[in-house]
Amino acid sequence: MFSSPLIEKLVDSFRCLPGVGPKSAQRMALHLLERNRAGGQHLCTVLSEALQRVGHCGQCRTLTEDPICKICSSSARNSKLLCIVESPADVNAIEQTGSYRGLYFVLMGHLSPIDGIGPDQIGIPALLELLRNKQIDEVILASNPTVEGEATAYYIAEQIKGFNLTISRIAHGVPIGGELEFVDGGTLSHAVNGRQVVRNL
Amino acid sequence: MFSSPLIEKLVDSFRCLPGVGPKSAQRMALHLLERNRAGGQHLCTVLSEALQRVGHCGQCRTLTEDPICKICSSSARNSKLLCIVESPADVNAIEQTGSYRGLYFVLMGHLSPIDGIGPDQIGIPALLELLRNKQIDEVILASNPTVEGEATAYYIAEQIKGFNLTISRIAHGVPIGGELEFVDGGTLSHAVNGRQVVRNL
Repeated sequence: MFSSPLIEKLVDSFRCLPGVGPKSAQRMALHLLERNRAGGQHLCTVLSEALQRVGHCGQCRTLTEDPICKICSSSARNSKLLCIVESPADVNAIEQTGSYRGLYFVLMGHLSPIDGIGPDQIGIPALLELLRNKQIDEVILASNPTVEGEATAYYIAEQIKGFNLTISRIAHGVPIGGELEFVDGGTLSHAVNGRQVVRNL
Repeated sequence: MFSSPLIEKLVDSFRCLPGVGPKSAQRMALHLLERNRAGGQHLCTVLSEALQRVGHCGQCRTLTEDPICKICSSSARNSKLLCIVESPADVNAIEQTGSYRGLYFVLMGHLSPIDGIGPDQIGIPALLELLRNKQIDEVILASNPTVEGEATAYYIAEQIKGFNLTISRIAHGVPIGGELEFVDGGTLSHAVNGRQVVRNL
């Protein structure tokens, strides 16, 4: 509908971004062209560089432009603790809490046979290799608390139970700041079953 | 917080898009890197080309990669009718209705002295030039029904009243499909005052 095919193509291209429909895509294209060409040029440069240089960490599989990511190669981290997460965004979320100082292993997804995502796709061979070569004391299963995430956690626990290490799963329970009244039944029953003793008799 | 400075830079770059906060920016960056590198590459190419080639139409000031845009250079349009709008998105919106076949003039903004946007910035000299050189019968003022848009429409009407042409303003009234109960007072009083006779006595 634009009188310019090039702008129309640009609007279309923005549709590849998640959560961007036709209206937002148009708004983005016109915003950059009308008001922020420098920002658009910068986005171009950085995106092109990132697409070229960012690959996967050789140890934990997260996205990084280095052969081994900053966390895996850091000497300040506790290398006996390994936290298994689904995506780089999860690494970021846990890092932001500042309460975890161990290493990560990033599955880059979860088991989903119907989509053709099996153990090889989520890097189970690399995980077993890592556990064989490194001295890990505890593996924390931090896949999402969804059906697929739980299944993935269960599968990994089965695969690595032969190793001499502690296997744990992140706690399910009521979120901090929430009200019990509005917490769903599944979470609440997990919270009650997983209760922690404050004072023993 | 990412273990990769390049991904962090990419997340930051996405913030230049309108309506994109830190969470959406992270989601966009990781989505492209994890799942749609081809789409990202395409966006890069098209954005870079658009930033380089898209300029303003020499006649109507809209964004286009041609010296004169497709609408201005079309012989199928009614060149005696000129619709003045604030932005290329407005041109697009009116074109999509399919009910207007005249030409446009795009202000690329509205009068806003506090931001340093005066008559020169919204192209009033170019508009007067256009009216002098072309045979225009009617100018439709279609700036937004906001305070600034109304002021801009009023200002333009004052400037062009010396020309021998009809000046009109788009109708204010109740939107189609809405319910009177939920229409704001200002709109409703415009709708009543601007009522149209269905049958004369």
